Amino acid sequence: MSLKLYFAPGACSFVPHALLETAGADFEPVMVKLHKNEQNDAAFRAVNPRGQVPVLVDGEQVITQIVAIVSYLDAKFPEQQFLPREPLARTRVLESLAWMNNTAHPTFTHVFMPFKFAGTPEAQEELKAFNAKVYASLLGEIEAMASKAAAAGQPWLGGERLGPLDVYALVLLRWGGFAKIDPTSYPALWAHVQKVAQQPGVAKAIERERLQLNLYKP
Amino acid sequence: MSLKLYFAPGACSFVPHALLETAGADFEPVMVKLHKNEQNDAAFRAVNPRGQVPVLVDGEQVITQIVAIVSYLDAKFPEQQFLPREPLARTRVLESLAWMNNTAHPTFTHVFMPFKFAGTPEAQEELKAFNAKVYASLLGEIEAMASKAAAAGQPWLGGERLGPLDVYALVLLRWGGFAKIDPTSYPALWAHVQKVAQQPGVAKAIERERLQLNLYKP
Ligand SMILES: N[C@@H](CCC(=O)N[C@@H](CS)C(=O)NCC(=O)O)C(=O)O
Ligand SMILES: N[C@@H](CCC(=O)N[C@@H](CS)C(=O)NCC(=O)O)C(=O)O
Repeated sequence: MSLKLYFAPGACSFVPHALLETAGADFEPVMVKLHKNEQNDAAFRAVNPRGQVPVLVDGEQVITQIVAIVSYLDAKFPEQQFLPREPLARTRVLESLAWMNNTAHPTFTHVFMPFKFAGTPEAQEELKAFNAKVYASLLGEIEAMASKAAAAGQPWLGGERLGPLDVYALVLLRWGGFAKIDPTSYPALWAHVQKVAQQPGVAKAIERERLQLNLYKP
Repeated sequence: MSLKLYFAPGACSFVPHALLETAGADFEPVMVKLHKNEQNDAAFRAVNPRGQVPVLVDGEQVITQIVAIVSYLDAKFPEQQFLPREPLARTRVLESLAWMNNTAHPTFTHVFMPFKFAGTPEAQEELKAFNAKVYASLLGEIEAMASKAAAAGQPWLGGERLGPLDVYALVLLRWGGFAKIDPTSYPALWAHVQKVAQQPGVAKAIERERLQLNLYKP
């Protein structure tokens, strides 16, 4: 077995985790506990000097960055069509994937790890509050994607196949719970995410990570 | 002429701008002045509701997000090989491109537009100072990329062809000047960026945007 995925439960590494399970890939899942700061252990830093999951290892190759890993998995498991083949549809998926990755995801990081962006407790508190609001509105953009797909009778956010947008949407909506955002207030997205969670590969990754979808506490 | 690029001088839209000129593409450049807040004018919001450049318009299609635009241009101008054809080399370029786009670029945004992340002047000042330091260390990572390529006799950051990493590196190092970071303190990167700037397509984009490479004032 040459494939290995370093992941942290509930983290963005769920994206490649769920895709690997969906592809039925034979891979070794390696857990990195962020709450124990294991991403900064020398052993993990030797794998990824940036100290972040996900990391995909394929034989000699160590690949980081969700966007790169997704595109690598798309090429490795072509039958899954994680990214659409048609160039324009592919561009659309990359557009939303890049946005989730460079905008929605880092906005949440301000809420979850404000110390990455500011040093004082005051600034950190402000970052949390400010960006939780921004995050709620970004989830509104994903709600619009889900509701548009539903209206068009399109089963998945990227088209006819389950792909990275669907699993990233699940991660991002779930994170909302930490920011005191009620997932059920995004009805199309919440319905979509529940459907995503029921797909066998996704369900397997959820089980391994022991994830609860709705973390919101009123 | 069906191709149109919305860009702002010196902004990240320089990446597709320089690639379009490199490809010798026939396109209409449309300037959006960020210092006049034109990205929030109704006319531009109608093109991109998120109020950001770059936006590439190809006939009926409106494409945002650098990562998606680069991949679209790679498919549209295959002879340029903006992204390597070999799957692993391609993954490596996507990995660095995604990182520049989701980490280096947003870190600078904290310095340049701190009001996107916090409301009070105190928090904004702290974001600027804190992230200027982080940014200097991220430029150090790009310096390492440039120095590794130079040591390997590899002409461009992505391999044998000028590509998105080279022009993004130019943008990011140039932005450093705004954060009081001296570009010449990254010798391999500074040498690389000057070489990039001299390539005919890149030089054309620099001329249209009237860019000065070294913005650092001691
Ligand atoms: N740009 C990276 C981001 C990865 C990332 O944000 N990883 C987080 C978990 S969601 C992490 O490992 N954080 C631990 C840390 O930064 O200390 C990617 O797209 O893969
Ligand atoms: N995630 C976008 C980011 C684009 C972006 O940051 N654009 C900046 C210029 S570098 C912008 O238009 N800023 C104006 C604003 O946000 O008001 C991408 O990758 O294309």
